[in-house]
Formats: sequence, C-alpha cells, structure tokens
Amino acid sequence: MSGYFTEEIPAEELTRQMEVARGVGDSVRALVAATVVTDVDEDDVIEAQRLIDAATAILERRRIDSSFGIRFNSDGRQRNWGNAVEGIRNPVAPPVEFEAGDDRVWAEFSLGPQYEGPPGLVHGGVIALILDQVLGHAAVHAGAPGMTGTLSIRYRQGTKLGSMRTEAWIDRTEGVKTFAKGQISTADGICAEAEGIFIMPRWARELDIDRRSRIGDA
Amino acid sequence: MSGYFTEEIPAEELTRQMEVARGVGDSVRALVAATVVTDVDEDDVIEAQRLIDAATAILERRRIDSSFGIRFNSDGRQRNWGNAVEGIRNPVAPPVEFEAGDDRVWAEFSLGPQYEGPPGLVHGGVIALILDQVLGHAAVHAGAPGMTGTLSIRYRQGTKLGSMRTEAWIDRTEGVKTFAKGQISTADGICAEAEGIFIMPRWARELDIDRRSRIGDA
Repeated sequence: MSGYFTEEIPAEELTRQMEVARGVGDSVRALVAATVVTDVDEDDVIEAQRLIDAATAILERRRIDSSFGIRFNSDGRQRNWGNAVEGIRNPVAPPVEFEAGDDRVWAEFSLGPQYEGPPGLVHGGVIALILDQVLGHAAVHAGAPGMTGTLSIRYRQGTKLGSMRTEAWIDRTEGVKTFAKGQISTADGICAEAEGIFIMPRWARELDIDRRSRIGDA
Repeated sequence: MSGYFTEEIPAEELTRQMEVARGVGDSVRALVAATVVTDVDEDDVIEAQRLIDAATAILERRRIDSSFGIRFNSDGRQRNWGNAVEGIRNPVAPPVEFEAGDDRVWAEFSLGPQYEGPPGLVHGGVIALILDQVLGHAAVHAGAPGMTGTLSIRYRQGTKLGSMRTEAWIDRTEGVKTFAKGQISTADGICAEAEGIFIMPRWARELDIDRRSRIGDA
C-alpha cells in the first residue's frame, strides 16, 4: 500500500531522531501561535518573515516524496509524524498524545489561539478533528482498526481555548463495523459528544485480534 | 460579547495590514509544510530551529490579549485572522476562501502534507473541519448565522491530499434551526458529505434578515 513504509533504523538513532523532530515541531508550533496573536509593527513582521523564509530554505534542501505516510521501524515503533492530530513533527498538530486503559482511550492537552473558531472558543471543526482521532484510537485499541465511515458530533456548549480532555470507548461492534463514542470536556463540563462508525478494511480482517490491537502503538 | 471588537482603521491602512498579514501567514505555512516533509540532517534541522526561534522572539515582543477574536472595522470589513479554516494570518488554516452564489457557497483550495491522516490522504477530521466551516457559511449566507448544534459526516472514499472543492447549501429551516448540507470532492468524485444543524443565537434572532446575511462578509 503506498504511503506505508518499513524501515530498519537502530533503536538509539530513532530515539534521537524523535527528540530532534519533537524539538523543531515545538519550535514551529510556538511560531504558529505567535503569528496568530502578534501585535508588532510591519517592520518587525517583515524581519521575522526573512528569518522564517531562511529556515524554510534550509529544510527544503532535501525532502521526502509527497507526504510523511506511516513508517514501521524494525524495533516495533511506528512513526506518523505527519498526522494532523498526533504528528510530533507536524506543527498543525498540538500534538495530542493518547493513553489507553482497559476500556477506553483518552488524552489531556491544551489548544492555543491557532485553533480558534468563535472568539475565545475552539473551532467546532477542530473539535471534530480531535474526536475523529480519539474515536479511531478506541477502535484500534479494541482490535478493530479502520477508516471512519461516519462521524457525528453533538455540540453542547462552547469549548474554551486552553486545557481540555478527550476520551473514547467502544459502544458495540456489528460484523466489520465498530461503533465508538467519545467526548471533549473542560472545566465547564462536557462540551461535545461524538459517535463514529469505523469499517474494518479487508486487509485487517485477515489478521488475528492480537496483531490488530498492536497496530496503533506509537 | 468578549472576543468581538470594533475598530476604526483607515481603509487604506487596513488593506496594507492585510497584505502584510497574508505574507507572514503564507511564509509560516510554507515552513509548516517543509517541517513535515523535510529529510535534512540533524545539523540542518538545528540551524533552521535557531532561525525559527529568533523569528518567534520578534513576533512575541508585543501581542494581543489571548486570541484574535473577530474584529469589525468602521469601513465594513471584518477580520477573523485567527480562524482555524479562514484566518489569513493563522498558519494552521490553508486558508480556505469562500465564494457565495444565489443558493450555495463554495471554495476551491489545496491541502498539503500537514493535513494528512491515512497515508497520502486528508485526515478525516480535517475533512470535518472544512465541512463545519462551509456549512456554517451557507447558514450565514442564508441570513441564519449560528453556532453548530450537530454535524454529521459520511465518508464515501479517501480524499487525496492536493486540490479539492467544497460546497454547501441550505436544505431547510425549522424555527431557529437551519439545516445545511455540503460535500468535499476531488478528481475522484465526492469524497465526503455532511449535514449540519445550526442554531440561531438569541442576539441574532432580533436582527432583520438583511443584517444577518451581511454578518459573514469578510
């Protein structure tokens, strides 16, 4: 399948690469937030822009083909650095780091001004973005990976920018369909609830459940 | 309402500010994409990171309060530079620029590697993010602004990263509820369809329909 890669990077080297990736990812994230809320004069913006363009020119000296894809290393680790929610080297991603328990997956994270929709609130579509990812994780964790078939979000109240929590669990399965539910909550309580149906792809149906549940491990 | 501001910026100066804003926004967008797909050595990454951090330090010399909010200028223009889908100075946003016709709103745009979910495909949650915005625009264009009550996405096929089109229209209204529908399509056809219910806020119910339909004009 195109976009999936297998690699053989020595474990210590991969760990170092991940530190470097996270470092530059976090630097660009800080720049993204600063760009949204800056109030400096035009001269300062132009000066900053020169430095930004110079950094881009360095990073563009060599690039991978089209997108990061998903890379499986020989030591068992998986890299999805380009993922819009979790990618450690994707500045669009917060990134959200998920944890898994017996019956649910969750994450606690913070969203800054670059995720705004209504003033001071998280964009409703960003809420959907996070929920799509956490519901998908719940499906993977239950041994039922798949692509989203349908996703429904019910918005109960505005989600203030800042700290929040998301969690998801499996409601039920019906054949190749897995029904997941989840929510996002802040200090104000539950802000949005979601239901998602995940369809197990043909290639996964032939794997046993133990192998399927390991697919999501980062 | 907090986060909404009225301003009196001379029209010519505001136009200049918008050019500067778009310029730095586009520069950071290019950096975001380069960060995702770079394949340069660690030394080059560290060098780029120094430039990035220096740019951030300049932009952080002065900042607005917490988030950009929505700003209404005395010349009738509205600024939502922090919006996660449309904000010209928000590097998380592509940005998507919408057009409006008699009975629908639409946009044509391109999504790069920073919006990846499954390898080579747009993240299902980014699909939801775009659809939430275009459905909301359809509601505003019809004179029925509101916050999203519910959003449902049906994913028909993967959306390849690259060029795509989105459109939305009003299906019907029931009292304070507006039912909008929309889709995202590529050269492969319709990739996702959405339905959204928008609830008109109390403050808007008291405005006449002409004033309500102007609220969304950028």
